[in-house]
Amino acid sequence: MSQAKNELDPTERMLRACRGESVDRPPVWLMRQAGRYLPEYRQIREGTSFLEMCSDVDRAVAVSLQPIDLVGSEAVILFSDIFVPVLGMGLEVEFAPGPTLADPIRTHAQIEAMRQTDPRDEVPYVFEILRRLRGELADRRIPLLGFAGAPFTLAAYLVEGSGSRDFATLKTMMVREPDVLRSLLARLTKLTVAYLEAQIEAGAQVVQLFDTWAGLLDAESYREWVLPVHREIARSTRREDVPLILYLNNGSHLLELQLEAGADVISVDWRVDLERAASLAGREASVQGNLDPCLLAASREEIFSRVARIAEQASGARGHILNLGHGCLPSTPVEGVRAFTDAARALGRG
Amino acid sequence: MSQAKNELDPTERMLRACRGESVDRPPVWLMRQAGRYLPEYRQIREGTSFLEMCSDVDRAVAVSLQPIDLVGSEAVILFSDIFVPVLGMGLEVEFAPGPTLADPIRTHAQIEAMRQTDPRDEVPYVFEILRRLRGELADRRIPLLGFAGAPFTLAAYLVEGSGSRDFATLKTMMVREPDVLRSLLARLTKLTVAYLEAQIEAGAQVVQLFDTWAGLLDAESYREWVLPVHREIARSTRREDVPLILYLNNGSHLLELQLEAGADVISVDWRVDLERAASLAGREASVQGNLDPCLLAASREEIFSRVARIAEQASGARGHILNLGHGCLPSTPVEGVRAFTDAARALGRG
Repeated sequence: MSQAKNELDPTERMLRACRGESVDRPPVWLMRQAGRYLPEYRQIREGTSFLEMCSDVDRAVAVSLQPIDLVGSEAVILFSDIFVPVLGMGLEVEFAPGPTLADPIRTHAQIEAMRQTDPRDEVPYVFEILRRLRGELADRRIPLLGFAGAPFTLAAYLVEGSGSRDFATLKTMMVREPDVLRSLLARLTKLTVAYLEAQIEAGAQVVQLFDTWAGLLDAESYREWVLPVHREIARSTRREDVPLILYLNNGSHLLELQLEAGADVISVDWRVDLERAASLAGREASVQGNLDPCLLAASREEIFSRVARIAEQASGARGHILNLGHGCLPSTPVEGVRAFTDAARALGRG
Repeated sequence: MSQAKNELDPTERMLRACRGESVDRPPVWLMRQAGRYLPEYRQIREGTSFLEMCSDVDRAVAVSLQPIDLVGSEAVILFSDIFVPVLGMGLEVEFAPGPTLADPIRTHAQIEAMRQTDPRDEVPYVFEILRRLRGELADRRIPLLGFAGAPFTLAAYLVEGSGSRDFATLKTMMVREPDVLRSLLARLTKLTVAYLEAQIEAGAQVVQLFDTWAGLLDAESYREWVLPVHREIARSTRREDVPLILYLNNGSHLLELQLEAGADVISVDWRVDLERAASLAGREASVQGNLDPCLLAASREEIFSRVARIAEQASGARGHILNLGHGCLPSTPVEGVRAFTDAARALGRG
């Protein structure tokens, strides 16, 4: 990574890192940085369900902004849930605390009954939150990120009816009723494209697609079921000036295929060797990651040393965004998160 | 893989495949082949807890043998649970249905209070089951496998107190109280070596070490915490005539390190590219695997074609044992398991 001489502002640093242009040091933010590990978050959340929070514009804006001052994050991500746009399709999803459906999607009839509407009409609060955040962030030059859950991950929950270790119902559908699953993925892909486009329109400067469960698949199944969906989303939502980050959980065996989607940045977990990722990505994509969030329980010194190693491993990439390999956990120590973002700033001081 | 001209008996085929000697075709068995997917298993289990089954010699022998005739498996594995030897240390583990501990292990004092005894005295039924099975199998020339859970996986449950998606308590212990975890792993390693030695003495002809949770770690942490344990077990229990199989769940990023343990066979899940595994293993180890158990829901034709592809991908290995990438699930269709073992036999007629 070539080094820009002057210190960049956070928005410029983030956008340049995503595009593989020279930066002074990697930008830093954390997945699920607005979360239960923060006492100030728990205070705002108190007595409110997770979904209520997602549609409460004031509170969602407030918690989205918390990580800037509380833990030194250099980007803000929309506070929401990957299921929010799905609710707009008329599905009943409960959070207990993971998404659960009393009536899992298993038939063509259920898929045809799903409403095809504009997310702007169904979940307008999402775009209101983004517009408000963009306004709040303008002066501070902090970049605003939007996001969506990837169709395969949404389908995994919708078909299985809940989280699962094996997602055996979903995988059984893959071999026994491939047309049903294909049709469900097509609907969700259309929804996701419209949803991300509306987020960009409302002010998101970068968007991240989260595929939490695609890593359950072998490479052959991923190529058949997931890659075309990612490609379609990348093709339809990518803008010259709004980079797309593609996150795979547990996808170290899928790295080559993750790159084939055409996203600007691949986001990887701690199982991925960043040197290998950087070398495979070449000039095609930047890399984001990849500390194990559990290691934020380590001492400040240890966190600094791990961040330095991660930055070194990613140094061959065209661009690197420092982040975790998975979201912050409720048990994550606040001081560990602070050490993490401080360590990123220390990289700039060489 | 070079082909022996004459059809081998199942014991000879298995032992030769483990050692990388020429065979007529890959041997076949399935992890968790004696399980709830079999109606005949459910009948014997009825009204009995899982742990009761493990100590009921007659029933354990009966269900261990079922997969030979019911689904055509060509090896028998001891029916037991990875926690059986741990019970002999005086720990209270409940199954609900996964292992749970009211009093998770978090301190040196708890580790020192764990009894260090001979598994032969504490869980004599395990060895009685093996002796009985060996007697039953002698005439049929079916090989008998023993097994143990790997210390890291046992420690994961003991520290966390139950299964977990992130095992954050365990990973926090890794960075905050490494000495406690090291001491727990040392105890469990000693236990595992004694347990496998006693199984070999009781007639196990091959032993498999199951590491279900080591795949949660990044390569660096695995090298520090898991590899020395696997090495110690391989060094202490390996016999010229009793091969050791090392299974990692979700370990595609750890393949090189899995090979460094010195086991005779590496067993891998469907995320691993078998061609890559075969090429890395070279003449040092055979490979076992790796169909996704969920794909046993596919048609007989599809299963035959997938098995043929797996055998082709593994053809560069010094030896290949056809198996799943993870255990059979309660929802696995019996006819899919039969198709799987038939497909292995069809390879010999290829």
